[in-house]
Amino acid sequence: MTAVTVLRLNHRKERDKRITIHVALVARAFGAKGMVYSGEQDDKLEESVAGVSEAWGGRFSCEHVKEPFRFARRFKGTRVHLTFYGMPLSEVVAKGAGKAGGKGVLVIVGGAKVPREFYNISEYNVSVTGQPHSEVAALAVFLHEFLGRSEERLNFPGWKMRINPSNGKKLVERKPRRKEHGRKDAGGRKK
Amino acid sequence: MTAVTVLRLNHRKERDKRITIHVALVARAFGAKGMVYSGEQDDKLEESVAGVSEAWGGRFSCEHVKEPFRFARRFKGTRVHLTFYGMPLSEVVAKGAGKAGGKGVLVIVGGAKVPREFYNISEYNVSVTGQPHSEVAALAVFLHEFLGRSEERLNFPGWKMRINPSNGKKLVERKPRRKEHGRKDAGGRKK
Repeated sequence: MTAVTVLRLNHRKERDKRITIHVALVARAFGAKGMVYSGEQDDKLEESVAGVSEAWGGRFSCEHVKEPFRFARRFKGTRVHLTFYGMPLSEVVAKGAGKAGGKGVLVIVGGAKVPREFYNISEYNVSVTGQPHSEVAALAVFLHEFLGRSEERLNFPGWKMRINPSNGKKLVERKPRRKEHGRKDAGGRKK
Repeated sequence: MTAVTVLRLNHRKERDKRITIHVALVARAFGAKGMVYSGEQDDKLEESVAGVSEAWGGRFSCEHVKEPFRFARRFKGTRVHLTFYGMPLSEVVAKGAGKAGGKGVLVIVGGAKVPREFYNISEYNVSVTGQPHSEVAALAVFLHEFLGRSEERLNFPGWKMRINPSNGKKLVERKPRRKEHGRKDAGGRKK
């Protein structure tokens, strides 16, 4: 599966605390391998995300980056900027943007006032619906389509808890095991 | 198109202000006809949602409800509860839950600690991914699949602003017109 990294721009600790953690958890649940974020560095955010991976498995990374434009510019793969202003998602997916090859995809998730330069360096500016709604939702629907609606089949190695699908509540917990052989993680790599 | 109403449970004015507005805007952008919410009544939330419809069109409603369980119980159509614990979305969509007929669908979006009774009265408890993430994302992906990925084709009559799809920024504004004849709104009804 294409390796996806999410770049969340301009995090503000107090105002964005819940939104940015939703962005991170959506990235993880829908198959990205990690999130980098700019704006204010936030220990609590990083600990919350690490706590989820610790319990639910996988090796999703969450790191602060000081110079997001430089990070995006140096990225070797395809840059996709999710924006209110952009091409319809269906067109971008039909164009085969998902087949970005081995260099991976950087999904740039803005907020208010994304500098023009991010539009310019992105191979794709993509709009999910063309209506005002939510960067959390846009990221989820984008990854859902971009990665071929594969999120239900992802594996999260090292999980301590998981849900058994049912029409009620079924939570499974397990003790940590010493080793796990040959299981694949969300990125499809061997452990 | 199936008429969808979203029921957002237990809104807390201060803590949930941004999340609940994201839920409402996602509901609108992905084709629901309105949202009702329980918990704290919130004028600001209602005004924000009304402001978006005023500018971007459509007649999405947003109303407070005091007794959400009673509201859900009395609902005549199909109840779908989005929960971390539930059947995989793909299975529910494959079962044709979308063909709910003329009585519409109530999508129940919880938060922390949804009372058991909401699980019990729902025809479907649906999990989007089975991993912890975001009710905003779950609602978006659910509506995207449930309504046949139709969100890009929705009309929002009476819009004053809309985006023209492009690989950059293109915003269209128009003066209000006196009348609009025969255009269809998001719910497919004549004006």
